[in-house]
Amino acid sequence: MTLLLQGINASPGMAVAPILIYRNSGPVIEEKKITDATAEIERLQAALRETRAELEQLRDSVKAKLGEEKAEIFEGHLMILEDPDLIDAVIESIQNQSVNAEFAVHTASSSFIEVLKGMDDEYLRERAADVRDVSGKIIDRLCGVTQTDLSQLTEPCIIAANDLAPSDTAKLDMNVVKGFITEIGSRTSHSAIMARSLGIPAIVGVGALSDDIETGTLALLDATTGTVTIDPNEQQQHDFTGKKEQYDRQQAELAKWVNLPTLSTDGHRVELAANIGKLEDVQKALDHGAEAIGLFRTEFLYMGRNSLPSEDEQFASYKYVLEKMNGKPVVIRTLDIGGDKELPYMELPKEANPFLGQRALRLCLERPELFRTQLRALLRASSYGNLKIMFPMIAVLSELRDAKALLEEEKAKLLSEGITVSDSIEIGMMVEIPAAAVSADLFAKEVDFFSIGTNDLIQYTMAADRMNETVSYLYQPCNPSVLRLVRMVIEAARKEGKWVGMCGEMAGDESAIPLLLGLGLHEFSMSASSILPARAQIGGLSYESWSQLSQQALTMTTQDEIQHFVKSQS
Amino acid sequence: MTLLLQGINASPGMAVAPILIYRNSGPVIEEKKITDATAEIERLQAALRETRAELEQLRDSVKAKLGEEKAEIFEGHLMILEDPDLIDAVIESIQNQSVNAEFAVHTASSSFIEVLKGMDDEYLRERAADVRDVSGKIIDRLCGVTQTDLSQLTEPCIIAANDLAPSDTAKLDMNVVKGFITEIGSRTSHSAIMARSLGIPAIVGVGALSDDIETGTLALLDATTGTVTIDPNEQQQHDFTGKKEQYDRQQAELAKWVNLPTLSTDGHRVELAANIGKLEDVQKALDHGAEAIGLFRTEFLYMGRNSLPSEDEQFASYKYVLEKMNGKPVVIRTLDIGGDKELPYMELPKEANPFLGQRALRLCLERPELFRTQLRALLRASSYGNLKIMFPMIAVLSELRDAKALLEEEKAKLLSEGITVSDSIEIGMMVEIPAAAVSADLFAKEVDFFSIGTNDLIQYTMAADRMNETVSYLYQPCNPSVLRLVRMVIEAARKEGKWVGMCGEMAGDESAIPLLLGLGLHEFSMSASSILPARAQIGGLSYESWSQLSQQALTMTTQDEIQHFVKSQS
Repeated sequence: MTLLLQGINASPGMAVAPILIYRNSGPVIEEKKITDATAEIERLQAALRETRAELEQLRDSVKAKLGEEKAEIFEGHLMILEDPDLIDAVIESIQNQSVNAEFAVHTASSSFIEVLKGMDDEYLRERAADVRDVSGKIIDRLCGVTQTDLSQLTEPCIIAANDLAPSDTAKLDMNVVKGFITEIGSRTSHSAIMARSLGIPAIVGVGALSDDIETGTLALLDATTGTVTIDPNEQQQHDFTGKKEQYDRQQAELAKWVNLPTLSTDGHRVELAANIGKLEDVQKALDHGAEAIGLFRTEFLYMGRNSLPSEDEQFASYKYVLEKMNGKPVVIRTLDIGGDKELPYMELPKEANPFLGQRALRLCLERPELFRTQLRALLRASSYGNLKIMFPMIAVLSELRDAKALLEEEKAKLLSEGITVSDSIEIGMMVEIPAAAVSADLFAKEVDFFSIGTNDLIQYTMAADRMNETVSYLYQPCNPSVLRLVRMVIEAARKEGKWVGMCGEMAGDESAIPLLLGLGLHEFSMSASSILPARAQIGGLSYESWSQLSQQALTMTTQDEIQHFVKSQS
Repeated sequence: MTLLLQGINASPGMAVAPILIYRNSGPVIEEKKITDATAEIERLQAALRETRAELEQLRDSVKAKLGEEKAEIFEGHLMILEDPDLIDAVIESIQNQSVNAEFAVHTASSSFIEVLKGMDDEYLRERAADVRDVSGKIIDRLCGVTQTDLSQLTEPCIIAANDLAPSDTAKLDMNVVKGFITEIGSRTSHSAIMARSLGIPAIVGVGALSDDIETGTLALLDATTGTVTIDPNEQQQHDFTGKKEQYDRQQAELAKWVNLPTLSTDGHRVELAANIGKLEDVQKALDHGAEAIGLFRTEFLYMGRNSLPSEDEQFASYKYVLEKMNGKPVVIRTLDIGGDKELPYMELPKEANPFLGQRALRLCLERPELFRTQLRALLRASSYGNLKIMFPMIAVLSELRDAKALLEEEKAKLLSEGITVSDSIEIGMMVEIPAAAVSADLFAKEVDFFSIGTNDLIQYTMAADRMNETVSYLYQPCNPSVLRLVRMVIEAARKEGKWVGMCGEMAGDESAIPLLLGLGLHEFSMSASSILPARAQIGGLSYESWSQLSQQALTMTTQDEIQHFVKSQS
């Protein structure tokens, strides 16, 4: 039976492939009294055998594809599976406490994890995450749940999930994953941002998926209208194919802008840059005509792993991006974790309001060793390209000064060690907290550039969590208050002769681009897939006119009024 | 053994009284296997008898003090205690599942509560809170925990707690509670604000209290230095008494300012108002020389009870305050719940970042019936005094317009019903979200006044939860960004001929008062106990000079610089 779902276009495009239902929350573990302990232990042993087989297969396939070293983690997992301390504790509690195997595994592994977490030795502490992974797999087997490993997909599919965590999207192989849909989320949720960054079509916020939808059913995903058609009839498939061909032609049409500069009709030049999160994104950015990397989100180097990345690992990644960009500017943002971004191997305190908590630079200044490692890696990489370093979440001058001082210290150390460091690294900051925008004139004297992070700036300016649907009506990029702050930042920078970029969602939003051009924004950084449409749009706008029109728009009182005005003038 | 504690002065004053340790978190309920079910049921019956005796005593004492009606709630509680559905379920699970009585009571009452919460009938739904109360009392007895009922204290004491919730402070009888100390908290936590509003000395954030400290031990609380001395020796008691006498003399000295207007040395007049949360606070405000009520926090009418206050109850409260103030201005803020303020009888969705969620006016616009009841009560009360209505948490114009439209609708209805409504009610809004400050010129055209809520405004401007200690260094009232926003609001209002008040902590902060006076703030609303010191301070300042000096301060780059400047000029 055909089913139509409607959601929010998170990343443009059209795709056709079978659905893959991905349930990323583990099963609920209930305590049950059992009567036959022998049968229960039998059940446990079967689950252990199946898990072992699964892990061995994973190890072998990873070894073949990615090499010996990457496969080592599974050797560790296999050892946990045979750890007598853990397994004996499980068997004992099945026998003596008459509980079910799932519960026994959960209890034993939880206390095991607690013990590991309390260890002085860092290596042992990190094993806690491995025990959690392995016990999760055993419990899945016991509960009859088959968790899909997103990194192991081999057949083309459209993923359907409640939501996809950054660690999930990091695993996706773009050769097989043709698109995804999620039950929750908005245009600014992580899964949406990742989809745009990966350049795959995605629709978010379609609401609870019916249990009737099964993995393998054909789906048509149209992320130009926000519609998903599950189990389409022939007519629907035919219409979709026609529309997709037309869409593909339009995309091909845009390709002529790839190697052109970004110029308005009256010859005003701006820079279109890409936001990236992974090394693979660099090639995609270049393919889409990026003139720079405007935001490299380094937190993705820290995610989907069991320990902090070493200085050398980070150095290699930064060097790769800089060399690949071959002299074009690369703005690398220092670590932004906390808030809604957690690292499994780093215990951060639970906060009542994480978006107003100790995140990003606040955390880095509190844990200088973590920060210094990243700064050293950045400085060492600086001689391989055109590096600009950017600090996130700055509210007061002292934070900027502290961060710069740490950078200077590490630079001096490296130079004294005889290591080459570029002497033309620009230092900038995100403007994403209202305090930074309001005092942009003070900050402009102490940085080389600003990048306006509109996702957070809007959230704080409106006091509205951008992930909370009940206040989503307040997420207004073209609200007069937001535009005034943007103008304030650009004007403050201009007075000091500094440049201003924007790396939030707004920079790629076609209804905001004319205003941003007119206000004098220098660099627009966005998802790779938005670059060519933006270049084509700017190619049709007059800078002169929009300088006037944007000032006129800023005398208006509501976002509706302003958006209507922009539309009427475009 | 004498013990010295050091914390943050939350409310000034000095007190000497025995300590009362108040543990407001319930005991941890563990599931245990029992072998002797009969003995366990015996233990349960004893706890039920003791709880019954406690409830009967409470009922009788409340009946004697407050009358039959207030005592009714305890009749309801006694009925729950004898409810066979509940008690039989508990006994059954002790017998059949061999669990301990605490766990059985917890499990049975939890499912009972869930059932009640799912009822269509509002009365029955509200009984869920009663079941929670009663089962909590039974569990306390079973665990040997004696919970102190803060409303039933009869002997002078200084309360020591981890923290005091608004529902706790609402119960305090100022005749016996001489002060309190809390383990956690800051100057802007609720317990601190309540202490200032109640006018009792308080020290917060003293850290974990030693288990050695026992209820009944004498304590000296010095909230001028932030020091608490537990079990003092004779010399310490003697010194304390001497210091307290001197403190009391200074306080008496301030009394000469009670009936004077608030004038600078050069004759510029401002208004000093009080922030209140309870009806009893009105008399205290008048005693301390308040010229107005600058903020009546109506949420306290909704707290410490089991159901929403009716229109008539609210009307009676508003009328009482207006009449008591006898023509002096009374600014009543509409309901501000959500965020960190919850109502036990109203299920609000859990939010990831409640301070950025659906709170205050956002919630009222979503639940118009709740809001209309309050608006009708306010309108009906308006003819009894000088009422000004204020809306909290406005970020965009549409919210203000929607709130005003609802008010107009209710006014029209009342007038058509022949009810008198004042035709000179001023309508204002809190400026506590950066968006409102940045666009104050737009809002100024549509309100009669602003009141700057600095507690939230600073929190959002800095993107730093004011309750989160790890980012407390960002709570900077005299930061240039904050002061610029304050100036923006005052200047925008001046251009439209509207007045501006301030009802956050900053209005009573002696290091900020000279700047606020100079920037042209019209009304300073603060805790009653801060009014006379503020009047004395302003009596020594020149408005002319501070108009200049405040502009000079606003060219500075950090809070430190500005505070140092204010000090050097005062």
